[in-house]
Amino acid sequence: MGIRAAVAGASGYAGGEVLRILAGHPGFEIGTLTAGSNAGTELGTHQPHLRSLAGRVLAETTPENLAGHDVVFLALPHGQSGPLAEQLGQDVLVVDCGADFRLNDPADWTAFYGTPHAGTWPYGLPELPGRRAALAATKRIAVPGCYPTAVTLAMFPALLDGLVEPDVVVVAASGTSGAGRSLKPHLLGSEVMGSVSAYGVGGVHRHTPEMIQNLGEVAGEPVTVSFTPTLAPMSRGILATCTARTRPGVTLETLRDAYGTAYENEPFVSLLPEGRWPATSMTLGANTVLVQVAHDERAGRAVVVAAIDNLTKGTAGGAVQSANLALGLPEELGLTTIGVSP
Amino acid sequence: MGIRAAVAGASGYAGGEVLRILAGHPGFEIGTLTAGSNAGTELGTHQPHLRSLAGRVLAETTPENLAGHDVVFLALPHGQSGPLAEQLGQDVLVVDCGADFRLNDPADWTAFYGTPHAGTWPYGLPELPGRRAALAATKRIAVPGCYPTAVTLAMFPALLDGLVEPDVVVVAASGTSGAGRSLKPHLLGSEVMGSVSAYGVGGVHRHTPEMIQNLGEVAGEPVTVSFTPTLAPMSRGILATCTARTRPGVTLETLRDAYGTAYENEPFVSLLPEGRWPATSMTLGANTVLVQVAHDERAGRAVVVAAIDNLTKGTAGGAVQSANLALGLPEELGLTTIGVSP
Amino acid sequence: MGIRAAVAGASGYAGGEVLRILAGHPGFEIGTLTAGSNAGTELGTHQPHLRSLAGRVLAETTPENLAGHDVVFLALPHGQSGPLAEQLGQDVLVVDCGADFRLNDPADWTAFYGTPHAGTWPYGLPELPGRRAALAATKRIAVPGCYPTAVTLAMFPALLDGLVEPDVVVVAASGTSGAGRSLKPHLLGSEVMGSVSAYGVGGVHRHTPEMIQNLGEVAGEPVTVSFTPTLAPMSRGILATCTARTRPGVTLETLRDAYGTAYENEPFVSLLPEGRWPATSMTLGANTVLVQVAHDERAGRAVVVAAIDNLTKGTAGGAVQSANLALGLPEELGLTTIGVSP
Amino acid sequence: MGIRAAVAGASGYAGGEVLRILAGHPGFEIGTLTAGSNAGTELGTHQPHLRSLAGRVLAETTPENLAGHDVVFLALPHGQSGPLAEQLGQDVLVVDCGADFRLNDPADWTAFYGTPHAGTWPYGLPELPGRRAALAATKRIAVPGCYPTAVTLAMFPALLDGLVEPDVVVVAASGTSGAGRSLKPHLLGSEVMGSVSAYGVGGVHRHTPEMIQNLGEVAGEPVTVSFTPTLAPMSRGILATCTARTRPGVTLETLRDAYGTAYENEPFVSLLPEGRWPATSMTLGANTVLVQVAHDERAGRAVVVAAIDNLTKGTAGGAVQSANLALGLPEELGLTTIGVSP
Repeated sequence: MGIRAAVAGASGYAGGEVLRILAGHPGFEIGTLTAGSNAGTELGTHQPHLRSLAGRVLAETTPENLAGHDVVFLALPHGQSGPLAEQLGQDVLVVDCGADFRLNDPADWTAFYGTPHAGTWPYGLPELPGRRAALAATKRIAVPGCYPTAVTLAMFPALLDGLVEPDVVVVAASGTSGAGRSLKPHLLGSEVMGSVSAYGVGGVHRHTPEMIQNLGEVAGEPVTVSFTPTLAPMSRGILATCTARTRPGVTLETLRDAYGTAYENEPFVSLLPEGRWPATSMTLGANTVLVQVAHDERAGRAVVVAAIDNLTKGTAGGAVQSANLALGLPEELGLTTIGVSP
Repeated sequence: MGIRAAVAGASGYAGGEVLRILAGHPGFEIGTLTAGSNAGTELGTHQPHLRSLAGRVLAETTPENLAGHDVVFLALPHGQSGPLAEQLGQDVLVVDCGADFRLNDPADWTAFYGTPHAGTWPYGLPELPGRRAALAATKRIAVPGCYPTAVTLAMFPALLDGLVEPDVVVVAASGTSGAGRSLKPHLLGSEVMGSVSAYGVGGVHRHTPEMIQNLGEVAGEPVTVSFTPTLAPMSRGILATCTARTRPGVTLETLRDAYGTAYENEPFVSLLPEGRWPATSMTLGANTVLVQVAHDERAGRAVVVAAIDNLTKGTAGGAVQSANLALGLPEELGLTTIGVSP
Repeated sequence: MGIRAAVAGASGYAGGEVLRILAGHPGFEIGTLTAGSNAGTELGTHQPHLRSLAGRVLAETTPENLAGHDVVFLALPHGQSGPLAEQLGQDVLVVDCGADFRLNDPADWTAFYGTPHAGTWPYGLPELPGRRAALAATKRIAVPGCYPTAVTLAMFPALLDGLVEPDVVVVAASGTSGAGRSLKPHLLGSEVMGSVSAYGVGGVHRHTPEMIQNLGEVAGEPVTVSFTPTLAPMSRGILATCTARTRPGVTLETLRDAYGTAYENEPFVSLLPEGRWPATSMTLGANTVLVQVAHDERAGRAVVVAAIDNLTKGTAGGAVQSANLALGLPEELGLTTIGVSP
Repeated sequence: MGIRAAVAGASGYAGGEVLRILAGHPGFEIGTLTAGSNAGTELGTHQPHLRSLAGRVLAETTPENLAGHDVVFLALPHGQSGPLAEQLGQDVLVVDCGADFRLNDPADWTAFYGTPHAGTWPYGLPELPGRRAALAATKRIAVPGCYPTAVTLAMFPALLDGLVEPDVVVVAASGTSGAGRSLKPHLLGSEVMGSVSAYGVGGVHRHTPEMIQNLGEVAGEPVTVSFTPTLAPMSRGILATCTARTRPGVTLETLRDAYGTAYENEPFVSLLPEGRWPATSMTLGANTVLVQVAHDERAGRAVVVAAIDNLTKGTAGGAVQSANLALGLPEELGLTTIGVSP
């Protein structure tokens, strides 16, 4: 018998991706699937690509319906996980793909989300130094945001070793699935195709404090982050371009050594060979993180580019990776670095 | 120890997809990878999405390099499999993703390909009536073309039961990967994006005789096929719209019954519930075939739409499905109907 | 002073395209712009690409606001033009981009739209034989639907000359703007990109009776049309593939002669040179219609492919072309066959 | 009679866009069109969207074929304009869309292009302070690069007024037409669609010294620029995100005032209203530049985003705008800010 997993929010993009991964995971058995306004309909209406689960009927998202499972994955709009999680058993592993439990500082939460802070759970980015032990011992996991996953993994090795100044500029392109299945005019295909646009400019995107928190913890000093997200005409993928001034004496070799060391034993992160640069298509459907670094001597900056699939490593793959750790399973179980391309 | 598989043409799109599937297949061990002009380079240069195989060096495509395996997958340009296959052992399973061994009639081959006919191998479409036994007993498999896979599965149940006249019109849209990694101006991203175009109009596309052959065998009488392929701005996927005049007394129910019966036990083919229509995104990266049928009473026609991923069920997934049969493995092993979406 | 033109429905895609063309038209002066729920907002909120009109405030769509113009372009949801048009002066040229006045047969209207029939206006497809005189003498124009524009121009020359049987199969791909700015899940960028899908299959699409009407009038006998629309991952463009059985003695030359004759003096329609096939990108933003014909001898069919921009020739360009005629202006004024590509 | 214009390199993307604009320009008459390896073929083979010019035969690119015109537009690969321009008459206006004459410093040219420096011509960016007089008096114009156009217009007002430090970080996304019609694997549709990728990272892109030159001249002091270009899945468009640390006392109002002042009389540049952000689709096919600025107080940075069409304002539109000035025509003649969308 597998570990029984429930998924709340199964009709959305994040929930669908959790199910896609669970369906191919040898350790899990897929239990109850729940939804909000889509409760009572068949999963196949919303996720027609998940053929073997198409006939499953969605229950309402209630603590009762989610009870009786070993793991509950929450793929809900921000702010809904907090109240629900309180009513789930303390012995159940709860993995929250939303933002509710990511931030340490309640003031940050309130400033960016406008509601009371639900709390802080162990942060599900095992690649950050020293995090695996906490994840192995927890029943509550806050899955990182998609942009923070890419940006944190792009920049922490340089900040950890003090190779760059703690003042980071990030411009990242995301596919439209990052916005979820929201019926907004600017997300219509006619608007999105053939167009790159900026949004949330000037530090107002909700993922900003999460990046600042992660990088500051690694750097051991406050880090400023100027973050500009852009929307690109693709369904999936994040390409994050990150740059910071290098400290004296830093060379390309110093930088490559730091990243090589940080990632040499990481199953999902690759520092690319020199001369090759990440593309989001190299990560599609996989839990892969691709990183490359350059040293712009004239500008005095390190430039680091990272690519992930925002729904896989950036959401559901990251969730399962941390859940594997918390459940004592091999960290890589049911996950792959083999992407779908072209 | 797994079954040792070699892949010839590993740097192309078809070869890459074979490898993607083999990498997740529990029954195979990936042996030698070969290429033509890319021999001597690393696989990661061409297939950066296949992380765990990225460091593999490509050997030259020769019988010697392909020797010593239990299975050899050929993913070569049309016309190259014939001469090579002659030099591979008779006890080795050879699975040809090219066209060389698909056609029964040498005249058809010569008319459409212009070279001498190499021969005819068992045709790797297990869903066609009565084909599984032949595939279980062979050491040589001709993998169907991508368009013929979609069109044959869209139309054979109606023709088998004599529900429609043997005069079929097909218009199909394909993603650009169907053309392979060829450096032609009309395949450049700037030309392809935002544009649907027609090509090979008027019965000149090389997949036409293959459709005629398949459908004629099922119908038990000659079938005419008017086939028009179009190129759509997406990397993967085929949507085939097929229509034929219904015979007297045929209703939507008759049609749905025929398709329901044909596919009720097929692991990879689904007749969709009434009211839902296939989209190629529902099949991305999966071995899925989605079919839906309508009866246009005013026009007196059955209209059948089928969607597949041209590289998966249309090439590499179909190849592995037949190889599983030939090797005595479960037909579904290493294949999935769980697609990657959105 | 130019001819004063009002546009009702200025915040939608069709209305925006009418404005794009009017803005570059030397004969028109842009007057009042109206909208439904967007009344009171600036045009630039909805049509940020129309820079010189961005500050215009949208009035409510009422007969009073539309009064005092020489021409009124209606770009409204189907069913709304009828009641409104009754309240516009008989001396004002009213050009309806909607479907309300296209169909001759009230029974067709009711069967496909479900409301009472508003009436029939002169049909704005000047390329149909004998239509220019009626358009030059009218104050009311029904602009053809986008699909019927492409399909009628693809097939009428062959039917006019009796070269094919009156039983036409059409499969057409459209960009998403054809569905307007509707907030429906299947029109979200995440769903549309990377996917071709079928919809309205089996003769139920509302443009079907319009095609049957046009082609039947030209053929002089009833014509059946099997029409399947598909949605392609692009914002604009229609590629229509049309086929019918050729009558005895018809050859490629016969066919090319018919099309050459039909279009030799048409300013917006081109029969392509042999060997070249239409792509929608060749027509982007232009009033161009590209047509090519093949004779599939083995299948006994003529195959005709036509490409248009669904918003230009398929909607707003066609509207202005007919309005030019009705106003006594040169038919080509303010329109172009120079597209935007790549 | 209009001003006679020749176009060298008419079969490429830049040349095609020059022709698209000239075809709608009331002041020009299109003369000889030339090409390299495509000489002797019809323009319609390469630019099928330019219907009225489709039958024009391309001459070879030689000084003789280009003689006898009032203006010659050069749309050639970098390095080819230099030798050719020497052989064109001094009384002929030569407008070079290539890079050959953009850089002031021969060392910069040699470092980035590797060949001897051809010289420096007046730089065709009329929006830069004080440039219009020089352009009105010249017979030689160096059209700016596409990225430098966007980046210079995004950043110069802030640098001119000393509102930010002279240390600029730029990450820009470009459509694939920026790479021209080059047959390279990474430009194939299958590779480009669904993927954003980085290239030329670390200050090695050839447009970097041009940005540094422009911004340094405006700032009156050396400016460092960290420039990272990325390739987005669209044919056209550049979205440049630019950021620099603000100097003490600078607020959002200071910044908006500077941009408002710089662009209030510019026909092609718009500072968007607060709360709206540029998308490349808003500029498609138009000579429009859209700019928006934010002040990230937490990070201490101004963030400026600019959108252009890389082929229009970024190449051919910019070329015609400067040519208009040099010919004494109205600067806006034949150019528009009305884009094609959706």
